[in-house]
Parts: sequence; C-alpha cells; structure tokens
Amino acid sequence: MEAWARKNTRFIIDPIVGLIARLGVSPNALTVAGFAINVVAGVLIGLGHLLAGGLVMTLLAMPLDALDGSLARATHQQTRFGAFLDSVLDRFAEAALLAGLAAWFTQQGDALSVVVTFVALVGSFMVSYTRARAEGLGVECKVGVFSRLGRVILLAAGLILNQPVVMIWLLAVLSTATAIQRILHVRRMTA
Amino acid sequence: MEAWARKNTRFIIDPIVGLIARLGVSPNALTVAGFAINVVAGVLIGLGHLLAGGLVMTLLAMPLDALDGSLARATHQQTRFGAFLDSVLDRFAEAALLAGLAAWFTQQGDALSVVVTFVALVGSFMVSYTRARAEGLGVECKVGVFSRLGRVILLAAGLILNQPVVMIWLLAVLSTATAIQRILHVRRMTA
Repeated sequence: MEAWARKNTRFIIDPIVGLIARLGVSPNALTVAGFAINVVAGVLIGLGHLLAGGLVMTLLAMPLDALDGSLARATHQQTRFGAFLDSVLDRFAEAALLAGLAAWFTQQGDALSVVVTFVALVGSFMVSYTRARAEGLGVECKVGVFSRLGRVILLAAGLILNQPVVMIWLLAVLSTATAIQRILHVRRMTA
Repeated sequence: MEAWARKNTRFIIDPIVGLIARLGVSPNALTVAGFAINVVAGVLIGLGHLLAGGLVMTLLAMPLDALDGSLARATHQQTRFGAFLDSVLDRFAEAALLAGLAAWFTQQGDALSVVVTFVALVGSFMVSYTRARAEGLGVECKVGVFSRLGRVILLAAGLILNQPVVMIWLLAVLSTATAIQRILHVRRMTA
C-alpha cells in the first residue's frame, strides 16, 4: 500500500521535494516537524476538536510524512539513523494521537471507548514491533493490510467524519488482527 | 542486568530446567504459560487485588519467564521463532498488566494516574521497540538500565508494597528516559 501510494503521488511530491531540497531542509528536520504536528493534532483531539485534529493530520502531518523519505532519496541523504528516527517518531506520533482520543473519550465518560483506545494503541504498536523484531532476527515481515498508512487514513477519516467510536473499534480489531497475522507469518517463515 | 540475574540464579534454575526437560515441555509452551499467568495477574490488578497480582507476577510469571530461555538452551531448542514469540508475548504481557492497573485507577477516579499509566505503556514499548528497530538496522542497542527485568521488578514491587501511584510515575519517567537514551545511542552509533 505504501509503495502504491508513493508511486501514484510522485507527480505532486517530486516538485515539492525539489523545492525543499533547494531550501536546504534536512530529511530529519521534516521527520521531526511531522511528529510535532501530530502532537498538535493529538492536543486538538484531546480538547474535543476532532475535525480540526483530523484535518491537521491529513493536510499537514501526512504530507510531511510522505516527503521525508522522498527528500532523503532525492538528495542522497538516506541514513540508518534517519530510518530509525522516522520509525520511532511514527510510534510516538500514534501514541500522541491516541492519547488525545483517550482523553476526549474520558471527558465524554465513555470508559468502554477508553479501553478500546488502549487496545488500539497496543495493537498498532504490535504491528510495528512484530516487523521490527522479525527484521532483527533476519525475517522480512511486511504482511498485513493494516500497516502505518492504513492506520493513519482510518484515524483521520474517523475524526473528519465524526465517527470516533466506530473508528477506534475498527483500529483496535484490524491492528490486533494484523499483529497476529504477522506472528503467524514469522512462525511460517522460521519453521 | 539480565545477564547478571541469569548467572546468579543458575544454581536454582538448572535443576528445575532439567526436570521440565524430562517432562517434555517445550520452551514455547513455557513462554505461552508465562504470558497467560501475566494476563491473570492483570485481571487481578484490574479487580483491585494489587497484592495478589504482584505475587502472581513474582512467584509464577517471573520464574517461567526466566526458565523458557534456559530450557531452550539446555535442550538445544533455541529457535528464531522462540526468541520472537518470547519478545512479542513479553510486550502483550506488559500491556495486560498495565491495562489492569489503568482499569483500577479508573475505578478509583484517579484520571491523572490513568494518563501516567498510558505514558508508562508507551515508554515501556518504546524501550523495546527502539532496540528491535535498531537491531533490524544492524545496530546493537541494549543500553539503559531500565530494560524488561527492571520494569517487571518495579511493577511487582509497587503492587506488593501497595504503592501503585509512586510506581507508575517511576515506570513512566524511567522507561521514557531509557527510550530517549536509546535514540541518542543509535544516533551516536550511526553517525
């Protein structure tokens, strides 16, 4: 899904990357900026501005998220630390967004949705953790439809369409299912 | 810390491992049993039985956690999937324990401690994620005093001594600090 999205957005991303490269902005600076914007979105969500949070995610954070890797490739600044920082801040960004959502559910007195948000956080982390741990053991593990891009799109859509409860249930179920799918994949690959 | 603990508990672990090996129990079965017991501990904590939860963790889950790796080594059943399953279920176990604690804080009407538990969960995950991701990129990353064993001991001690609030703050601060320490370590190692 990431590969498909990258291919079909090149016509718009490439000129922007060229511009940013000329401005001398580093890929890691873009990564950190994208993370900071997601924290702002998380705070907006926590304050009950779900639509604003969803729009900030979609219009500001997601483009930056798409640009850092492209900028690194275009300017030959691909580093292992850049890849590491990108992954780690992606996790912190998801945590910030879901913390905002949990805070909002808490204010609504919706304890069940707080629990489901907790499950969604664990599931989302485990999708990423299973892949990272498998790669550390030398097993490629990108299976599952519900990688980061899918999660971000679902989260943003749920906020913008004002369906946070339906969204968080889907996020919890689909991310947990993907994590389990990856565990089974690693078992097959190492059998 | 793990290596030190392993070395100084051999005199008691080795005979038990020998017994389990003769019973034909697989290392992965021990791993799954340890996880299941931690889930029971999490449920006990959520029901307000903090002392019982802490004792179940300490007396049942921690020994199993120490035995699976030893059994695998002793019976030459060390596999990549075993290592993967152990890591992944460790994460799910921590999530179950902290979910129980969050449920208990919620029942106490202690919203601040629920937030701190959320931070502790994210910090604990990030300590493990940073290491796994770094290893996937070929960088060893075991730095930081607050790896899994330290977290488990702090959690169990806080429950047994009936100091859950102090404990969860320490867990949140120390695990987040360790995650940041690992990010800086990876930056140094890849510079």
